[in-house]
Formats: sequence, structure tokens, C-alpha cells
Amino acid sequence: MDLLPDLKPAHLREETVSSITVYQGDFLHAKRDVVTLPDGSQASREYIVHPGAVMVVPLLDDGRLVVERQYRYPVDRAMIEFPAGKLDPGETSLACAQRELWEETGYVAREWARAGVLHPVISYATEFIDIWFARGLTQKERHLDAGEFLDVLAVEPHDLLEAVQGGQLTDAKTLTGLLWWQNLAAGRWSLSWQVA
Amino acid sequence: MDLLPDLKPAHLREETVSSITVYQGDFLHAKRDVVTLPDGSQASREYIVHPGAVMVVPLLDDGRLVVERQYRYPVDRAMIEFPAGKLDPGETSLACAQRELWEETGYVAREWARAGVLHPVISYATEFIDIWFARGLTQKERHLDAGEFLDVLAVEPHDLLEAVQGGQLTDAKTLTGLLWWQNLAAGRWSLSWQVA
Repeated sequence: MDLLPDLKPAHLREETVSSITVYQGDFLHAKRDVVTLPDGSQASREYIVHPGAVMVVPLLDDGRLVVERQYRYPVDRAMIEFPAGKLDPGETSLACAQRELWEETGYVAREWARAGVLHPVISYATEFIDIWFARGLTQKERHLDAGEFLDVLAVEPHDLLEAVQGGQLTDAKTLTGLLWWQNLAAGRWSLSWQVA
Repeated sequence: MDLLPDLKPAHLREETVSSITVYQGDFLHAKRDVVTLPDGSQASREYIVHPGAVMVVPLLDDGRLVVERQYRYPVDRAMIEFPAGKLDPGETSLACAQRELWEETGYVAREWARAGVLHPVISYATEFIDIWFARGLTQKERHLDAGEFLDVLAVEPHDLLEAVQGGQLTDAKTLTGLLWWQNLAAGRWSLSWQVA
């Protein structure tokens, strides 16, 4: 069943009339566009412009997964999450995944596989997050950015899924990573691994 | 295993020094705060203030799930997603779930169960999304907001999971809903249903 035969169907799509930057901060870049709706009327759309990001699901040889415990200021609490970070200008998705995994956790991987992509907030950001799996992990020394504080944990997948059910694990990218992990572990889905 | 024994551990948490609104649009409200980091240094945090939202996973009696096909301007494409929407001021989470399901799809549910919550974008928004399951569905007439255009589809869960694997379904809240659905359907997790 083809759920999306057309990514921009005429009866749903919106066309740009004009576009301005309404806020340019150190981190956030917000735009407001005027758009034409499918019925010909106009509306405004405000959204965050984002360079895109990657997430890594790191598989240890003993079956555990590597996650981080990090305080996230906007939600005012520590979160359990897979390593992730924004693409630098000109950086490939794989290079970014390798860099973020090493910087934040110290792990270097022998093999990589791209599972897919997720869109965290389709109503108000352009952000996409490429989903990478990494295996053949060796631990080196990590290199956190200045001002970055996080714990690195190696956790049984069962404990992560239990934390979802119990309400302790609520980060959408990480939940998406677990959906992929669960279907891969069950043999329903597969990945193409590359040595990198 | 307790992955988060403390939601605000001293070695990770950030404390607010000051907070200002840097952009107040029709939809987006952005703030920039100065914070103290765990090592005593200071940093700035820019983020979107959001009232919170709900998502509904609607279960039809024949096993299919109700999803929407909607063009999302920030990502410039149509997306497959579960019904969702923002909380109105003073509105309860359940009332919002009932309203959004009815307005967008026309379905009214006999029973409701709250599965949990997800945080779509913990690095730059306060947004949370309460996850509701709905069953005992009856179809009435839908009541879209002015300027809202979307298709309503009833889809086999298998087809949704195949669309994830194939890269057609990438909305993080919907992927999270499928993680919940898959573990509920397998009998690993359970819900407390209420008639509402």
C-alpha cells in the first residue's frame, strides 16, 4: 500500500509567496513565510531553520546499547538519549555520526549502517535527523565540547524499553531509535553495513 | 535498573540566571536564558516556549489505525501522521485528544487510555506530547479549522511499519506511537482504559 504516492499533492500542498527572517540568534533562526493554501487563500507559517542532525544507536558486542544521560534545559530535566548532534557546514552525515559518537561517548565504531531519517517537529522546524547504527565499538577517550556535561551508560535494551513503558524515557529521537532496534533485533527489518 | 534516579542531578543540571523573550510571533515564542552550568560557568540557551500537545493513536475495530496525510510546510512535503494538536489554554489533555480526533478525522471514541508522553525536541523546545490511545470508534462528520487540509486514512499496522522501513513515514511522534502500538499488540505492555 503506497501511503504517499505524491510528496506534494495539489490538494494539500502550500506554495511560498514570501519569506523573511524574524529572529536570528546564536542558535535559533526563525522565519515567517506567507503561503498560498490549496484553496487559494493565504496564511503565515513560522518555523525554525535547522541544518539537520544525526543520531547514533551504538550496539556493544555484548548486546547492550550506549546511551547518554544529559540535562536538557528547555524541558528542565535530565533525559536518557542516544548520542546525537547537528551537522557542521559541509559535513557528511556519516562523518557527523562518527564525530558525535566519539566526542560525546569516546566510542569508535568499525561498522556503520544508515537506517533512515526522522523529522522531530514537522509543524515548526525544518530539522531532520539521520538515524545511524554503529557496531564493532572500541572505547577511547571522549572529547566533550566546552560547557557540555553528560553521563555515558551501557544499558540492556530490555531496560530501555522498560523505561519507555515506565515514563522515564521520553525523547522522541531515542524512541524512534528503539523502534528501529526492536524490529531489527526481531529480524523483521535489516540494515546494510559498511566498514568506515 | 533505574536510569534516572534523579531528574536534576547536581553534576548535570543548569540553573536559570535570567530569561528574556527574543521573539513573539503569531505562533512561535522564543526565549533566551542565561544559565549557570554544573562547573559554575555561564552559557546561553535559546528555545521555543510551547503549551504542550496531544497525539491520538486511533484503533479501529477491524485492527486498522487511523492516520492523516498532511502537507507540512517546514519540511516541504506531505507526511503520514497520527492525529495531534496543541492544548488550548485551560484544556485538559483528554479533552484536547477528544477534540483533535473529532475535528481532524470525524471519529469519536468510546474508550481512551493515556500511554505516556514524548518530548519531540529537547534541545530547543519545551514541548511535550501526551500519547493517547482511542478505541470503540464511530465516524461522524469532521470539522477542520479554516485553512486546514488533510486526508484521513485507515491503514493496516503492517503497512505503517513497512512505510517506516521504506522511509515514507518519518514523523517522530508517529514513530513513537508505533513503538507503543507494537509493544501493546505483542502483549508486552498494557494500558488502563477509561470510558470517556
